Amino acid sequence: MTVYFDNAATTPLDPEVLDAMLPFLQNHFGNPSSIHGHGRQVRAAIENARKTIAHLINAAPSEVVFTSCGTEADNYAAVGSIRTLGLKYAITSPLEHHAVLHTLQALEKAGDIQLSYVRHDEQGRLDLAHLDALLAGHVGRSFVSLMHANNEIGNLNDINSIGNICAQHNAVFHTDTVQTMGHYPHDVQQLKANFLVGSAHKFHGPKGAGFLYRRSGQQLDSLINGGSQERNQRAGTENVYGIVGLAKALEISYRDMSAHHQHIQGLKDRFIQKLRAEIEGVEFNGTSAEADKSLYTVLSVSLPASDINEMLLFNLDISRVSVSGGSACTSGANAGSHVLNALDCDPSRGTIRFSMSKYNTAEEVDYAVAQLAKMYQKTPLKA
Amino acid sequence: MTVYFDNAATTPLDPEVLDAMLPFLQNHFGNPSSIHGHGRQVRAAIENARKTIAHLINAAPSEVVFTSCGTEADNYAAVGSIRTLGLKYAITSPLEHHAVLHTLQALEKAGDIQLSYVRHDEQGRLDLAHLDALLAGHVGRSFVSLMHANNEIGNLNDINSIGNICAQHNAVFHTDTVQTMGHYPHDVQQLKANFLVGSAHKFHGPKGAGFLYRRSGQQLDSLINGGSQERNQRAGTENVYGIVGLAKALEISYRDMSAHHQHIQGLKDRFIQKLRAEIEGVEFNGTSAEADKSLYTVLSVSLPASDINEMLLFNLDISRVSVSGGSACTSGANAGSHVLNALDCDPSRGTIRFSMSKYNTAEEVDYAVAQLAKMYQKTPLKA
Repeated sequence: MTVYFDNAATTPLDPEVLDAMLPFLQNHFGNPSSIHGHGRQVRAAIENARKTIAHLINAAPSEVVFTSCGTEADNYAAVGSIRTLGLKYAITSPLEHHAVLHTLQALEKAGDIQLSYVRHDEQGRLDLAHLDALLAGHVGRSFVSLMHANNEIGNLNDINSIGNICAQHNAVFHTDTVQTMGHYPHDVQQLKANFLVGSAHKFHGPKGAGFLYRRSGQQLDSLINGGSQERNQRAGTENVYGIVGLAKALEISYRDMSAHHQHIQGLKDRFIQKLRAEIEGVEFNGTSAEADKSLYTVLSVSLPASDINEMLLFNLDISRVSVSGGSACTSGANAGSHVLNALDCDPSRGTIRFSMSKYNTAEEVDYAVAQLAKMYQKTPLKA
Repeated sequence: MTVYFDNAATTPLDPEVLDAMLPFLQNHFGNPSSIHGHGRQVRAAIENARKTIAHLINAAPSEVVFTSCGTEADNYAAVGSIRTLGLKYAITSPLEHHAVLHTLQALEKAGDIQLSYVRHDEQGRLDLAHLDALLAGHVGRSFVSLMHANNEIGNLNDINSIGNICAQHNAVFHTDTVQTMGHYPHDVQQLKANFLVGSAHKFHGPKGAGFLYRRSGQQLDSLINGGSQERNQRAGTENVYGIVGLAKALEISYRDMSAHHQHIQGLKDRFIQKLRAEIEGVEFNGTSAEADKSLYTVLSVSLPASDINEMLLFNLDISRVSVSGGSACTSGANAGSHVLNALDCDPSRGTIRFSMSKYNTAEEVDYAVAQLAKMYQKTPLKA
């Protein structure tokens, strides 16, 4: 049995999405900027994709900008806002994805902005009163970037309240929704955010395709200059099949969202229950084990101190169980997880992130827990 | 008959390339940053692609950085060099692609650099003595960006001489090789360039995949910050199938280069000869009609002043002949071609760019010329 529980890193492409992409890999190859027949056909596909995505998140099509990935969209929102609007102050949290943290820290290092961090507790819950105080303490418009859900521990932030606080202070609010887009409904008419981000490969779409929702009226200097693609907001020939696949994947995600939510939450509940039964001293990082306070797709497990913890991922890999110890985006790096470090997690304990998708099964959960339990020598191997 | 002569805008995907990509769209879906089996398999594919490309251009694998497109690679080379090395002076030409021009002009507008333009003659031939004088007249290191071949008129620049001049002045030399990569051999051990650029969809690879050759020792601040992908040079989950397809497409291009060169040059010669025979007063922009001084893939035709010129592309499109009037990257924009404007082309004359690929045939050339000649009412429709 080969089990994939690293869906927060990337998800398998849905065959229905590939079917939508194939005509644009095989026949419709034109450059969407070309005005002849070969180009117009492809331009229409891109604009239909834009309309599909806009409709799903209750936005206008002109508010959707296609990018090469979620990271680029995060960069564009931050750098574009700060440079174009001349913002001098930004607020984030130490728990953000590096796509936000490293981008803001680079702007701070370049002397473009002063950067503050919202306080959080040992479970990673943000102190919104502190956010309010930081905004109140700054004269001039601020840029706020706080994610919807944390990719490592799964904590869901209350972005509705954060949006309201930002609106009260006229701050520009960017929320990295890479882990929730396609898994939770988003409605930009309700949420007071200036920017949302989507990455297709996090919801069974293709790699190399993302988008930025940019609230209208907020035209930004582009990050990548050149041709007039994306209404002068993102130069470079469009990744046509990527964009078509992105829209199809989001359409499927919304169509099947409640069924998948229920199925995956069931797997997560089973994981929690089995792990508690099989491994003494098991805990869960952040609010990971609390339904409605964390992503139903992510479970961050904290394992008792043990000599085997250094080899956890390695041993699971040998058992053909693919999981992550932290954010897969940087798991090749030597430094430990900045999120777990910020939470002051006990470094002697082991951490495993199980992240699930619609394709996972209860049998896979049982197999993964059995493999893990076997390592802690509490139960015999069952599968 | 439907004829596609807009290959400088984009090329059809080679079915052999799609075959190489499909396993990564169907089965091998892991995130290359993940250290488990699903990730390692995909990481290996990316590193093999990097080795393939490096080998073909005689570079080290570590000198190849994957990007989402040629435009991003151009931006990264320019912005990265200027910001990281603190360069204050840049030289380019008014005939460059907007990926270079708009990027450098944005840096000039931001006060980061002073920008000069190399002189050229009415055929678009660069004045290299002027380049030398500009470099000699500046104290401190300069950034030079001059393309290998012009995408609109096809002029080939002598990048070997330009590289030597830049080396004499210790300038950083970036050459936009988007139109020649995959069509001409490149050898970075011979050419004195710090940066070269490739865009897969210009040589029958996928859209959404490009690369920057970055001479070793020149690590730059990244344009897109986040995870540690591409050795901290380009954050964001890699477009795996795009990268696999890019390498396969470049491999095929090099494998079949001389045969395709001969075939396409034959089509171009036929175009020139037929157009001269059928349309009185036809001329060619730049050095487009001179073999070895222009891209064999591009022919920029200057047509006699006529009332029909405004409708040329439209009428050819009705005849199912897809061509471009200028750079397809911005052909949807209202402004005329900046290249033809810089050459002081007579605006009453019509301009058509025929750009050819290995898939075009002599019959298609004859058909396109017959359609065009019919519009000028000199010959009856032959096809």
